[in-house]
Amino acid sequence: MTGSGEFGIIARYFAPLAKDAPLAFGLADDAAMLRPRKGRALVLTKDAIVAGVHFLPDDPPDLIARKLLRVNLSDLAAKGATPVGYLMATAFPKTVEENWIAAFAKGLARDQKTYGIHLLGGDTVATPGPATFSLTAIGETPARTMLRRSGAKPGDLVCVTGTIGDGGLGLAELRQPHEGLTPAQRRHLISRYRLPQPRTGFGAHLNGVASASLDISDGLIQDLGHIARQSGVRLVIDSRSVPLSPAALRVVRANQGATINAMTAGDDYEIGFTINRKNLKKLNDLSVSTATPVTVIGWVEQGQGVTALDEEGIPLRLPHAGFDHFR
Amino acid sequence: MTGSGEFGIIARYFAPLAKDAPLAFGLADDAAMLRPRKGRALVLTKDAIVAGVHFLPDDPPDLIARKLLRVNLSDLAAKGATPVGYLMATAFPKTVEENWIAAFAKGLARDQKTYGIHLLGGDTVATPGPATFSLTAIGETPARTMLRRSGAKPGDLVCVTGTIGDGGLGLAELRQPHEGLTPAQRRHLISRYRLPQPRTGFGAHLNGVASASLDISDGLIQDLGHIARQSGVRLVIDSRSVPLSPAALRVVRANQGATINAMTAGDDYEIGFTINRKNLKKLNDLSVSTATPVTVIGWVEQGQGVTALDEEGIPLRLPHAGFDHFR
Repeated sequence: MTGSGEFGIIARYFAPLAKDAPLAFGLADDAAMLRPRKGRALVLTKDAIVAGVHFLPDDPPDLIARKLLRVNLSDLAAKGATPVGYLMATAFPKTVEENWIAAFAKGLARDQKTYGIHLLGGDTVATPGPATFSLTAIGETPARTMLRRSGAKPGDLVCVTGTIGDGGLGLAELRQPHEGLTPAQRRHLISRYRLPQPRTGFGAHLNGVASASLDISDGLIQDLGHIARQSGVRLVIDSRSVPLSPAALRVVRANQGATINAMTAGDDYEIGFTINRKNLKKLNDLSVSTATPVTVIGWVEQGQGVTALDEEGIPLRLPHAGFDHFR
Repeated sequence: MTGSGEFGIIARYFAPLAKDAPLAFGLADDAAMLRPRKGRALVLTKDAIVAGVHFLPDDPPDLIARKLLRVNLSDLAAKGATPVGYLMATAFPKTVEENWIAAFAKGLARDQKTYGIHLLGGDTVATPGPATFSLTAIGETPARTMLRRSGAKPGDLVCVTGTIGDGGLGLAELRQPHEGLTPAQRRHLISRYRLPQPRTGFGAHLNGVASASLDISDGLIQDLGHIARQSGVRLVIDSRSVPLSPAALRVVRANQGATINAMTAGDDYEIGFTINRKNLKKLNDLSVSTATPVTVIGWVEQGQGVTALDEEGIPLRLPHAGFDHFR
């Protein structure tokens, strides 16, 4: 990094991201203020990403920034909250080029417009290690409470938004291209890995419809396991019903075991949720009004854990349920 | 790291830190909830620290954790806010020992008691680089607004809490011991570097007393420069009045230029503020009631920037005003 110091970076690249948030004070104070609306609850979530772990060091900086923001917005969406703003800590290698930071900030500016939010505060430091970023996203619920992981009841249906497995296949594709994919399919998978599409519009109306909900980011089966554990129930997944994109379907047809990979690979950033069957009409209306595909993939029973059934209704043996940083 | 995976670490070491915060849901949901009290504003601040930059890799893990927390609480105190809770992202090297994490969490537990706050949420990831932590602290103001950097007026007095320069000298002491210090003085300086004492009790009552205020963390002169800039005034500092601890005084007497180092070294975590002279009585009462030493070190004039005067009243030439990560 040549030319501008820490305060120059903040003034040039990050303060403009806060200019339309009066209570961020242009990032020129020690802290930001927030005055939530009466009768609403705030929802707070925080994710961190590291070069070489969560993104590839040569990924485009604008996409890294947008993914960082979006993985957090995906958490808010799954909780039924509308995004309000975010704080961000950036640890850049000392050798970072100024145009890398400029592109990173540009990506944030673009997504701030898309999601109607602003940077509220943060910290910028240098690191002798890989670029490391963390972001605290703040949302507001329409009600006094947020959608939890713990409300699933026997008899409920298990649903997911969008398609499952694309993100994981996109990462695999970047490492070692799959055979038989068209260029468009290849681009689709990689784009799903690099740029999640958080279901913010759908999520904002999910409170009162779903009985339990969470963000699917570490693998469908592992994440649904959290709903099972928090709700004290068993989730049964019909693996044939798990929605796959045409590109993912192509990989699955060519590779034994690829369905299991799709269900355990992570990087989906879709919403996994359970609903009482009485709310199916509401769900379908919401799916239509927000143009969000929703698929019923299973049901809730008494018991514990997640069971995924194969095409003959026999429980699949899964080598591992999802991603774990320290395993 | 052997034995427990990511979820084991969270369950064993971090979830207990959230157990008394019902809206953190035992860290077992995607997000935490927060319902601020009516008529109050929330204050949000975020700092990041990196091994080898903000702390030494062989610093005791409990002290690293407590410093991480306290540097953020110091920001809240300077804004007149009372701490409510925090979210934390931890990036541990994959080789981290489990007892290191245990000690880190123990340090947080201890300070949570001291400051009456709880962990609300966060993220735990692995990094191929140095340990990197970031923390978002949330506080609540007694009023609808927070204390800013921008309210200083000509005629106001410039004050600081505690003593200046100890933290920076403590870091220097760890690298290369100063001559002539007693063991107790040496311990004092190192402890001031490793374990800041945020002025939370004092800060909670500063709103309505100070005209502008900020956390001194990057060097007294540089930080007061933010008040000058944000308020559109000049701050004049009588460098003889800058309060030094007995240990710092000993170093200053033995080394030409050490006063300048003390005013530019950083790691103070004291509050620097300006007040209208009419509030001196209120300030003295607050200093007594919260057992917080306060020293008047200068005044506010029309103009810009910060001028530090030497014993003859001549402006000092400062080689640099404070710490900058990218310079």
